[in-house]
Parts: sequence; structure tokens; C-alpha cells
Amino acid sequence: MKEYKLALVGATGVVGRIARNVLEEKKLPIKEYVFFSSSKSAGTEIEFMGKKYIVKELKEDSFDEGFDFAIFSAGGDTSKKYSPIAASKGCVVVDNSSAFRMDPEVPLIVPEVNPDKIKDNKGIIANPNCSTIQAVVPLKPLDEKYKIKRIVYSTYQAVSGAGLNGIRDLENGIKKYESKENYELQKFPYPIFNNCLPHIDVFLDNGYTKEEEKMINETRKILDRPDLPITATTVRVPVFNSHSESINVEFENDFELDDLIKTLKSSEGVIVEDDIDNNIYPLAINANNHDEVYVGRIRRDFSVKSGVNLWVVADNTRKGAASNAIQIVEKMIENNK
Amino acid sequence: MKEYKLALVGATGVVGRIARNVLEEKKLPIKEYVFFSSSKSAGTEIEFMGKKYIVKELKEDSFDEGFDFAIFSAGGDTSKKYSPIAASKGCVVVDNSSAFRMDPEVPLIVPEVNPDKIKDNKGIIANPNCSTIQAVVPLKPLDEKYKIKRIVYSTYQAVSGAGLNGIRDLENGIKKYESKENYELQKFPYPIFNNCLPHIDVFLDNGYTKEEEKMINETRKILDRPDLPITATTVRVPVFNSHSESINVEFENDFELDDLIKTLKSSEGVIVEDDIDNNIYPLAINANNHDEVYVGRIRRDFSVKSGVNLWVVADNTRKGAASNAIQIVEKMIENNK
Repeated sequence: MKEYKLALVGATGVVGRIARNVLEEKKLPIKEYVFFSSSKSAGTEIEFMGKKYIVKELKEDSFDEGFDFAIFSAGGDTSKKYSPIAASKGCVVVDNSSAFRMDPEVPLIVPEVNPDKIKDNKGIIANPNCSTIQAVVPLKPLDEKYKIKRIVYSTYQAVSGAGLNGIRDLENGIKKYESKENYELQKFPYPIFNNCLPHIDVFLDNGYTKEEEKMINETRKILDRPDLPITATTVRVPVFNSHSESINVEFENDFELDDLIKTLKSSEGVIVEDDIDNNIYPLAINANNHDEVYVGRIRRDFSVKSGVNLWVVADNTRKGAASNAIQIVEKMIENNK
Repeated sequence: MKEYKLALVGATGVVGRIARNVLEEKKLPIKEYVFFSSSKSAGTEIEFMGKKYIVKELKEDSFDEGFDFAIFSAGGDTSKKYSPIAASKGCVVVDNSSAFRMDPEVPLIVPEVNPDKIKDNKGIIANPNCSTIQAVVPLKPLDEKYKIKRIVYSTYQAVSGAGLNGIRDLENGIKKYESKENYELQKFPYPIFNNCLPHIDVFLDNGYTKEEEKMINETRKILDRPDLPITATTVRVPVFNSHSESINVEFENDFELDDLIKTLKSSEGVIVEDDIDNNIYPLAINANNHDEVYVGRIRRDFSVKSGVNLWVVADNTRKGAASNAIQIVEKMIENNK
């Protein structure tokens, strides 16, 4: 069995930390790991699989030593600069930034949804936006069975998606609640503690945020439905981790609710949590540290001919980022075997 | 000028407290106020407009002394039992519970939307559900101008809507965050701190919650559009006060976005906060202690022929409850003058 060499770029950030945990759990047949970061965090000592590692500074010649895979979670600028270099040296990059996602040459992969597209890569594979990943995992089997006609997304997104400074803003709000002391915001334009911010990523000329545009465009690309009507409102809420989503879906075809639920129950990566008599529905606090997408509150939308409402929750730093990227690497390893 | 006598039932609860504040601010031509509560809180001394009052226990003969108006905020059971008694003694009840809202004999009033229906009352006027009130204030002028075809609601509702015990659950979560000590939940089935609960009020046989059903049915009744297609997902978020709502609306008629925004700007009770270049959009923390409904993130929904997305925020204990009820009383006083 071939053993592989993997680079983790952005190893000290929120997603990088989770990626290390997931790699430790998964025990992939990787014989060598190298951890990279910016010059700021380079030199950090980390423990991984019982061994100590020094995080290296990412440089233009970092990939000269030869890697099979690199997972990039260090922001769009780093990805734009270093992913093509890594790819040119024969490494397959799984890039967690938005830099290449809409590039028609770059496959945008959720392993449960479109694993067949992995082989089309030319050295770079894009990992989708967190809020998109957890939506398409349950939507794909429903699209196959009933053909989706339109989607209305409203999201309830955790601060971990905004990185360490986003987490700090919420934490400081909590800690200063009783004393009412002021604290300086590190990430958000307004306090996220005790508030909901209808503003994720930058605003675009059409009035949408880039996060909303990502959900719309990436859903279309992953589902291979380039003209699918979709709209989105993406909102940051005072939750540390795991995104929740209210998803309203119209279908072209009729469905039986029991049949739709059965379809979801038998879908890879989906766990149906839907027993309202016993107050069972997906919750952010329960999704943390899991790689599955939880779906509940499944009920017919009586305002259209064939529609359903779903409440979809997943760990945005795991399934929405680190785990999805590692699952892509895992698929590539399986295919090479 | 006639001077009136007003009873406030449920004077010590969350909405009762706010109602006292709003009554102090409004300085209505009311010469006598009497405050009622259950036997549990009766005897409480409160200060109101610089005077001390003792809260009285609500009894079957409480309305014998003669009242012009009563505002009830003491839950459905109290309303069902005592509102008809008060009405039979010549008092007009503005009832904040859901007990009479869908009764065809009872007007369901938002003063900016359907003030003409107040005169149809037979002694009881229903105050709508908080999440409905803030939605219909901006939706009414849009319905008049463009005719609404369908609404998809997703809400982000504050814990104050669940009363004092709801507030306590969030507060305890915040206070125990650093020590990680356990605390007993007073109101919600799961922690609301660091979580979103897709569960407000009880579950119904069709899979919806009663809160979702209220939003659907009350919107139809207030807009006088009994067959309007509406769906809703209502969610509790870890915010102390002021509800936010993601509202997706389809219209029968075409619209120009500028014209739609102008319509909202000129509508009574609406404040448009929508300047994304300067990060201006409605926020729960800014809506607190105001009676207006804030509307922003106004943008065309490109997934349908004629649709718009709105982000709507209001103080659920004021405009969503106490202030709306007092505005109804104010309208009645104006009409009697």
C-alpha cells in the first residue's frame, strides 16, 4: 500500500487546529505530515499523533521537497499565491478558501455529493463554503429524486466561521456581561454577543453579501444545476460553533413526506433528527465535533404545490471545512489504491 | 376632554413591566390606573408616574368598579377566563394572549395596518403575536402596492418573548460560561445559550409549531388576505430582546426596487436602515426600547419573477407586545374624542 506525504497550510488557525484533530482520528495511510503557517505563527511547537512538530513558515520553495497532498486553510491570498506553486510540483491541493471555487477548471467537491468530479482536477480541488457544504449534503438526494425548482436559504452561522477573532468577540461579550465593561471588537463591525448580524463577508453591488453569493453559486456548481433559482440571507448569530440553516425548497415533482424522509435517512452523511413528540430536532450544541449533517423539522410547505421546510445543522469547522477537505483526500487515496 | 380608567393585568410580568414604561412615556389622558396580577405577585409594590401602587390580585369581581380599558398580558388561561367578564362590564379589553386572535368576532389589530377594524370590537380586541406584528407593519404597504403572492418567514427570536424564565435561561448560560458549572433550565427544553432552538411554543400535528401557525394565520387575518400562501420557520436565538426576521416575499406585480424602498420609507411605523456601504442594517441591539419596525438588507430576489428579501427587526416586548397594545388604546381614545 502506498503511503503518502501531506502538507497542512494554515496549521495554527481555527480550521487548521480542527484539521489536525480530524487527521489524528482518521489515521489515513500518510507517512509524513508537514505543518505550515505564515511567518507570524511559524516556529510554534505542536503535538500531533503523539509526536512534536515545529510549524514551518510557508515559502515559495516549501513544496520542492515533494508532497502528494496539501490542505490549504490560510485565506484566499495565500491560496492564490501558493496553491499553483504546490500544484506545479505535483501536489494535489485541497483549498479551503474561496479563491478557486468558481473557476470552471477547478472541481468543487463534497464527497457525498459529487465524488466523481475529483478526478477532473488539474492540481487544485476547491473545498466549498461551510454553509454550502451542509446544505448540499441533504439537498443532493432530494434533487435527484424530486428535482429542485427553487431554494430559499436563511442561515444562523456560528462565530467560529469568522476565525479566532470572531470567537474572541463573542467570548469578550460573554465575559463582560456582568461587569458591563467595554471591550474592543476584534472582528465584527458590531457586537455579536446578544445580537444577530445580517452581514457575513463583504457586501456586493447587487445588495447581497459575498457569503450569500457563495451559497447561491456554489450550490449550483456542486449540484450541477447552473441555472437553479436560489436566494439566500446569511446571518451571524451568537453561537460559538456549528451552523444552523432554515432551508425552504420547492420541487418540480410531487413527493410523499414519508418517502422524502426515508430518502434523507438513507443518504450518506445525513442523520435525520426529527421526532417532535420528544423534542428531537437538530441543535448546534449537539452537532459539534461530528462530521454528519443533521436534518430535522422536516415538514411540507403548504404555500406551494410541492415544497418542504428543513432545519439543517452541522459543525462548520469540521464538515463545513476541515473534515470535508480531509474526506476529499481520503477519497483520492481510496481511488489510487 | 374625557379622562379614562385603565387596568393592566399581568403587571409584574415581562410585558407588564414594559407596558408600565410605555404608559409613563405616552402620558395618555388616563386619570386612573389599576394594576393586577395573579395571587402569586399580588401585593407587590410598584412605582408608576412617581406614585406608589400595590398590585392587586385579579378576581372575578375586579372589573365591577368600572374600567374603560384593560390590557391583558397574563397568558391565555387568564385571558380566556377574565376578558369576557371585563368586557361584560363595559370595559374594552386589549388582549395580548393568543386566546382570541383567530376568533372571527375579535378584531386583530396593528394600528399602522388595520386601525379601521378597531370599531368592530365587541369588548375584546386581540393584540397579535410579536413576530407577526413586526412583519405586517412593512408588509402591508407592499401588499397594497404590489400584491403579495407568497411569504417565506425565518425568524431569529429573542428570549424575552418566552418571559422571565426564558431570560433566566440565557442569563444563567452566560454567567456559568467561564466556570462551566451546571445550571437548571427554567424554560427551554435545551440550553438557549450558545444554541439556536427551532422550537417556539408547542408542536402541532402537521409538524409546525404553534408559533409558526400563528405567524401564518395572523398575517393572513391582519392583511385581510385569508388565502395568502405563507410558510414559516420560527427559531429562538441567544439574544435577550428584539426579534429579527428574514422575510422572503413574492409579489403578483412587478416593482422597481427604488420605488419599493420609497414606499417603505414613507410608511407609518417603519424605519428603513439600509446603507450597506456604511454597514447600516437593522440590529436587535439597536431596536431595543423603540416602537418602530426597522427594515434593511432590502434586495431583489433574483430566483423569482418579482420578489424581495427583507431583514426586519423590532423590539418584541414593545412593538411586539406592550406598545402595540397601548397604541390600540391610544387609537380608541383618539376616536372617542
